[in-house]
Amino acid sequence: MPIIMTNNEITNGKCLGELSFVGLGLSLSHISIEGIKKLKSSDFIFLEGYTSFYFPEINAAMKVIGIKSDRFKIISRRDIEEKSGQEIIDLLLKGKNISMAVIGDPFIATTHLSLKNYAKEKGCKVNYIPGINIFSYAMSATGLFNYKFGPSATIVYKREGILSVYPYLVLSGNLSRGLHTFFFLDIDAERGPLNASEAIKLLIEMEKEERLGIITPETKIVVLERLGWPDEKIYYGKISLLYNMRFNPPNSIIIPGKLHFMEEQSLEAFSIERNER
Amino acid sequence: MPIIMTNNEITNGKCLGELSFVGLGLSLSHISIEGIKKLKSSDFIFLEGYTSFYFPEINAAMKVIGIKSDRFKIISRRDIEEKSGQEIIDLLLKGKNISMAVIGDPFIATTHLSLKNYAKEKGCKVNYIPGINIFSYAMSATGLFNYKFGPSATIVYKREGILSVYPYLVLSGNLSRGLHTFFFLDIDAERGPLNASEAIKLLIEMEKEERLGIITPETKIVVLERLGWPDEKIYYGKISLLYNMRFNPPNSIIIPGKLHFMEEQSLEAFSIERNER
Repeated sequence: MPIIMTNNEITNGKCLGELSFVGLGLSLSHISIEGIKKLKSSDFIFLEGYTSFYFPEINAAMKVIGIKSDRFKIISRRDIEEKSGQEIIDLLLKGKNISMAVIGDPFIATTHLSLKNYAKEKGCKVNYIPGINIFSYAMSATGLFNYKFGPSATIVYKREGILSVYPYLVLSGNLSRGLHTFFFLDIDAERGPLNASEAIKLLIEMEKEERLGIITPETKIVVLERLGWPDEKIYYGKISLLYNMRFNPPNSIIIPGKLHFMEEQSLEAFSIERNER
Repeated sequence: MPIIMTNNEITNGKCLGELSFVGLGLSLSHISIEGIKKLKSSDFIFLEGYTSFYFPEINAAMKVIGIKSDRFKIISRRDIEEKSGQEIIDLLLKGKNISMAVIGDPFIATTHLSLKNYAKEKGCKVNYIPGINIFSYAMSATGLFNYKFGPSATIVYKREGILSVYPYLVLSGNLSRGLHTFFFLDIDAERGPLNASEAIKLLIEMEKEERLGIITPETKIVVLERLGWPDEKIYYGKISLLYNMRFNPPNSIIIPGKLHFMEEQSLEAFSIERNER
């Protein structure tokens, strides 16, 4: 009689494995000594490459860190949401130490929370190794004050012709309190990353729909290009000047609220008007 | 005739030095490979130890990284605001490569922005090397969603008997929009770090003054203890249960707004009621 052991039988119902969520930061220079140590000591590494971008290409990064290609696997959103979530849990129940390596910080996006909570429920040990994330990097790189940011939002592509005005409503709430707004830009599996100029055009469309008068040609905006990468650039200027530019992906956007004079001074350094002279 | 060269004469009016703001993160395990590289290649390092705490003690950390004590100096807030700002600029004008090493991220607090802008004005090259900061670490460690945080605030000690109700007003604005509020806690040169339980008592006093009904014995609160350190702990519960506890410094606090069920699930793991059973 063949004996098929279930995972629970193997480990006697206890999860002996360890799941570490490792933040890689935005580029290889950001990885922490703890992150490298954890990746090196893991039995297997799952890498997600669908919520953000990384410099250099993520295979190359693993090579630099010294991790052989048979010890990691790049997974898609579908893998994690429909399949690999289970693959990961299975390995954990077998007592393996698994790393889930994530671009930026593992939990700044909500994608990995359900896996974390699920693993915890199963009794597996869960570790969090933080990484530099785009949101706080953007605050620091622009010189805008952390405590003056309201909630952020994601500007998304139209889907089936439908425009989501949610980011506009978040912006409106923030501006009425004098707060800055950080916008993540959509990444679509087929259409790729949303360019900042396309995102600005979507904001203009939202204005036409909601008519609160907060997006005008005079509205000043900060475009963040390849933040945290060796060739990062920051642009500050009126929408009328920025909306026709083409930026190298990935991009994000900040619409500042009321500026402190020190914030103004910091942004001036990125002024496209000043730099064009 | 003795010749006294001014800095401008030495460098012909140009700043040839480089000022790097290096984020150390919250503990030694957070430092990035870029951060270590930059510290090691600097002519001199200034370390600030007054806006936050670090694990282990910062002298020990430099030793671990491999930086000899004659290559760095720990400076006070007064040094930077009244004196060493100039000391740093002088070294830069002499063409030195200087690092300003900061606990957490260099620009999440506003303290170092004026030095950065001043060095830029003088024409010095300025670099930013990001570090893990308490604000985004707290979001990730608690499982609360990044995009649901409103602006943060600092709860400060009473000074000359005067209570600052500013944090309470920020909280009120956030709660009315369903948003979470992160509170930094004051560090006083004489009184040391503000304990979370003292901070809760100050919030209760603010409630007595402003009477908006947002702080009650039933208000649920998250206390963050030694976040990012090997012995970090997170507590979640009613104010009536938490305000008499004594926490190991450093602490910070989150008052959640409207919770998503996945956020609730994450916070449940830190419930003091559940863990007392």
